[in-house]
Amino acid sequence: MNKIGTFPFINRSFLKKIILFLFFMSLSLNAQIQRIEPPFWYAGMNNPELQILFYGKNIAEYQVSVSNAIKIINVTRTENPNYIFITIDTKKVLATNLTFTFKNNNKESFTQEYSLKKRRENSAQRKSYDSSDMMYLLMPDRFANGNRNNDSENTTTEKYNRELPGGRHGGDIEGIIKNLDYISSLGATTIWSTPLCEDNDPSFSYHTYGQSDVYKIDPRYGTNEDYIRLSSEMHKKNMKLVMDYVTNHWGIKHWMMKDLPTNGWINQFDNYTQTNHKRTVISDTHASKIDTETCLNGWFAPAMPDLNLSNPLTLKYLIQNALWWIEYADLDGFRVDTYNYSDPVGIAKWTKSITDEYPNFNIVGEVWMQSQAQMAYWQKDSKISQIQNYNSHLPSVMDFTLYEATTKVFNEDDGSWDKGMIKFYDNFTNDFLYPNINNMLVFVENHDTNRFNQTYGNDIRKYKMAMSLLATIRGIPQLYYGSEIGMTGDKNKGDGDIRQDFPGGWEGDQNNAFIKEGRTPGQREYFDFTAKLFNWRKSKSVVHFGKMTHFIPENNVYTYFRYNANETVMVLINNSNETHKINTHRFKENIKDFKTGKDVISELTFDVTNEIIIEPKSVLILELK
Amino acid sequence: MNKIGTFPFINRSFLKKIILFLFFMSLSLNAQIQRIEPPFWYAGMNNPELQILFYGKNIAEYQVSVSNAIKIINVTRTENPNYIFITIDTKKVLATNLTFTFKNNNKESFTQEYSLKKRRENSAQRKSYDSSDMMYLLMPDRFANGNRNNDSENTTTEKYNRELPGGRHGGDIEGIIKNLDYISSLGATTIWSTPLCEDNDPSFSYHTYGQSDVYKIDPRYGTNEDYIRLSSEMHKKNMKLVMDYVTNHWGIKHWMMKDLPTNGWINQFDNYTQTNHKRTVISDTHASKIDTETCLNGWFAPAMPDLNLSNPLTLKYLIQNALWWIEYADLDGFRVDTYNYSDPVGIAKWTKSITDEYPNFNIVGEVWMQSQAQMAYWQKDSKISQIQNYNSHLPSVMDFTLYEATTKVFNEDDGSWDKGMIKFYDNFTNDFLYPNINNMLVFVENHDTNRFNQTYGNDIRKYKMAMSLLATIRGIPQLYYGSEIGMTGDKNKGDGDIRQDFPGGWEGDQNNAFIKEGRTPGQREYFDFTAKLFNWRKSKSVVHFGKMTHFIPENNVYTYFRYNANETVMVLINNSNETHKINTHRFKENIKDFKTGKDVISELTFDVTNEIIIEPKSVLILELK
Repeated sequence: MNKIGTFPFINRSFLKKIILFLFFMSLSLNAQIQRIEPPFWYAGMNNPELQILFYGKNIAEYQVSVSNAIKIINVTRTENPNYIFITIDTKKVLATNLTFTFKNNNKESFTQEYSLKKRRENSAQRKSYDSSDMMYLLMPDRFANGNRNNDSENTTTEKYNRELPGGRHGGDIEGIIKNLDYISSLGATTIWSTPLCEDNDPSFSYHTYGQSDVYKIDPRYGTNEDYIRLSSEMHKKNMKLVMDYVTNHWGIKHWMMKDLPTNGWINQFDNYTQTNHKRTVISDTHASKIDTETCLNGWFAPAMPDLNLSNPLTLKYLIQNALWWIEYADLDGFRVDTYNYSDPVGIAKWTKSITDEYPNFNIVGEVWMQSQAQMAYWQKDSKISQIQNYNSHLPSVMDFTLYEATTKVFNEDDGSWDKGMIKFYDNFTNDFLYPNINNMLVFVENHDTNRFNQTYGNDIRKYKMAMSLLATIRGIPQLYYGSEIGMTGDKNKGDGDIRQDFPGGWEGDQNNAFIKEGRTPGQREYFDFTAKLFNWRKSKSVVHFGKMTHFIPENNVYTYFRYNANETVMVLINNSNETHKINTHRFKENIKDFKTGKDVISELTFDVTNEIIIEPKSVLILELK
Repeated sequence: MNKIGTFPFINRSFLKKIILFLFFMSLSLNAQIQRIEPPFWYAGMNNPELQILFYGKNIAEYQVSVSNAIKIINVTRTENPNYIFITIDTKKVLATNLTFTFKNNNKESFTQEYSLKKRRENSAQRKSYDSSDMMYLLMPDRFANGNRNNDSENTTTEKYNRELPGGRHGGDIEGIIKNLDYISSLGATTIWSTPLCEDNDPSFSYHTYGQSDVYKIDPRYGTNEDYIRLSSEMHKKNMKLVMDYVTNHWGIKHWMMKDLPTNGWINQFDNYTQTNHKRTVISDTHASKIDTETCLNGWFAPAMPDLNLSNPLTLKYLIQNALWWIEYADLDGFRVDTYNYSDPVGIAKWTKSITDEYPNFNIVGEVWMQSQAQMAYWQKDSKISQIQNYNSHLPSVMDFTLYEATTKVFNEDDGSWDKGMIKFYDNFTNDFLYPNINNMLVFVENHDTNRFNQTYGNDIRKYKMAMSLLATIRGIPQLYYGSEIGMTGDKNKGDGDIRQDFPGGWEGDQNNAFIKEGRTPGQREYFDFTAKLFNWRKSKSVVHFGKMTHFIPENNVYTYFRYNANETVMVLINNSNETHKINTHRFKENIKDFKTGKDVISELTFDVTNEIIIEPKSVLILELK
């Protein structure tokens, strides 16, 4: 008999944990029932309709009733008799245990208890991340191995093998918890970890985007309770935890795949059909039906069954799973993988359902498009998607056009009408297309791209220019783990190369970049710069929410200002190979009567009334006085 | 004493011309008045307010009254006493001659007659060009020299010199009129001639974008009456005449430049200031004031004073000049040069004023932007410009992003995710951004670009693919003169090279491509293909206004359909260097039960039920049956 909720932590004998267990534990399952999802729920949710999936042999043959005068709104049976979906109305029901009674035609009957728990205080009004934050993206298998005991587990197939670039390396939640102070010291306030739910694929499970149980943390990362502990430890340090949610697909080893609730739970084809990745079909009025269906319903990979968000049962399941994690693990936000590979109506409903429950909850979607208009289409209340009466309700998008520019600009030493800094300028000229430019993730790399320091051969001058841009431009800066110590990685060599282990995360690592003394001189230069920059940014609301004025780059030097009623910051980035004397009269409208500017990094003071000399391939971030 | 209206044609002694003269003649000017603009006007315009500019020594010292109980709405005097602007109300006034009486403090007085003429029948409801048309773009100086007598003229500085690539070559209106049948034989229905008003620059006046008198045809092209004759002859052949209007600037030799009506008539700077060409400043919420002003108010060239459309006097002058030409020359449409280099509010008012008078009148603006969103911003009722509460009222834009693609695609033999035919596909996926995709000019070259046949080294296969695309895609196809006989021209060698004389347009030309017998075998192949294609297109409403479905290119082969209730056209363009067998089952949603397709050019019939074989670098335009 399976039990949901009997996680390893109850073997530990601390009173505090026992209390936690009593608070979060689930009730035992009756013998006829193998799964209940969600395993428990919360009283007092905004949307009172709760859809409970019961899975068990021929469970659909039973009639169901429920205690406490709860109203059953809907009972859905599918072509698979092993599933029954019961939707109940939880309106005005306080935290309690309910009893479901199952009775079949032969008058056999059994009962199943179900818990409606109490929500956290002010749970619905929780704050989330915004442009005052700096987000640190890490892959848990590759960041730090905090607990050697869970490197391999009996219940999961793939075992520890650090020799394989695509193998399990043993990194875990404990490793993150142990290094929170390191992350915080960098000026990061938020962690986006790639997925942590169980992925029982026999290989490449380390990336964990092919999940086999979306209510359970992968045991090689830890337990559900470890995840709660991560969240809780972060909150103590005023940090925020962002979960990487995958709406588009599960892994082929997901427990349902052996016995689908209904054929329409996932998108199926006569022959294996891969997505064509052409997400533009969604807004393209000329798109053929076959291309559209292939894009949205085709699979991301053979081991990733594509979830059918146009199926109300599936959609409700995914909405509840997301809400459950927020409430259960006290989350501060989501990043959503492959956001626009799903049925657009379904994904919009999913997104809206979450923000209807948590109005301040931020969700950034991976919407990897080639133009600002196509990107802006996906942000909540977009005027562009309104052309088609569509609203994704997605609060935040990732600025992929800026990212694309960062992969080229710093090697374009000679600026021209379309080369060099003009690419950044052109990116920001299109900001008017976005409904909310402050709520965009800005980044120079992530776990799917070449590493910045690889592209630019560890030229730290280019790193400094790029990070200075991220730290001072609109949006939420995102740093990919290891960038801050100059880590390289070549996408052409495979994903393993861009997802290498963080040095110091493993016992016996010669190089321990988590501590000052452990860093090489090169790593120190990267780290110290990064930490100084982002710690400065932490308190700069002028950068978080201020206005921006920028000037057409000249000679590959880009100058812009961030300003509000109290402060003005002037940024100059010289991407050329020459020293330039910048005549500041051109910037009079922003410099106004300011006389000097103190550079954030060098702490040198510059006279800004006449001209500023700027070295080749360098940046000045001047706080004007 | 100058006379307006005493154009050379009255020296010719045909009765018909005398009658025309009597109809169109202007009234003599009083000695105190050197210029009246507009020189006459029309009764019954939708907007009854007529602003008349009187120019004469100290004219502003006079008080003005007018006959026929006409109401003077406004009298504007500027800092220059030689100008007075009188605005009268012409509401309900029939065609008549008015008398203006000028009286000064010394009680000296004189009178000036002014004519309100009768409009053409249904003038306001005139039709215009649309996607059922094919537009032939020519430069009059370079097309055909129909009248050797006007090659040089006494009143204009630059004289005939065919040796100079940038000199006057003698082409004229008569040359166009003589070759209308040639143009028509190509399947063209509309002519866009580059500007014809007087440009008295001492050099490079042949391009005629620096006009010195916007009420007068340049005498080297002919007379105002010749222009009317061109229009009239074209209408007899069911052809349409489009004037190239320049709102942004005049030439430095414009008569007003010696004695500006007011300093604010043009945009002036302490030192010469060139536009920065960054038209994105208009929508850019981060743009600096200085960059915005430099873009909009900076000059296009030192010899092109930049008109100030935020000055109501100037704006009204330009609106009336445009309306005057429509009414006077019975025009069918405008193309507007450098459309978004002007004050955006001013240019929108200009445009709306024209379409308020002529609701069906089409105007295509040169809005040379880098992305579809930036292009779409400028089309009338754009949802994108509505983000900023802006509406240009411009009915049509030129599809510059498509043009950019045509300059590269046909050399990209190997298709990839961003090379080859995918560029066309991607262009059209963004069509949803435009308010009206049928009202876009589609082209592969114009008088400002490298010649297509230069770029592709006269590979006629590439020409055929490109023209087939233009002829079958949404929008109004535009052909640049000479393209149809394979003319080349290298923009890097200067504009003269891309604006060479059309062979056969000059007496003694060895090669006369205007007539079948005169064409070289190579020219014949270009011409015959072009003529067959565009003559076929003439009657194909399925292509003019039909729907479109396209399919993601595979192997560098792009397939799309145009269809309506009655017809379906299937287009396949194979841009690869291999022969491909195309499995047609993928296109079932459009092929439906059609069995065969007849290729428009080869007239061969293909079975479309299973597969279609298509040769390398070739196109099939199949009418399905």
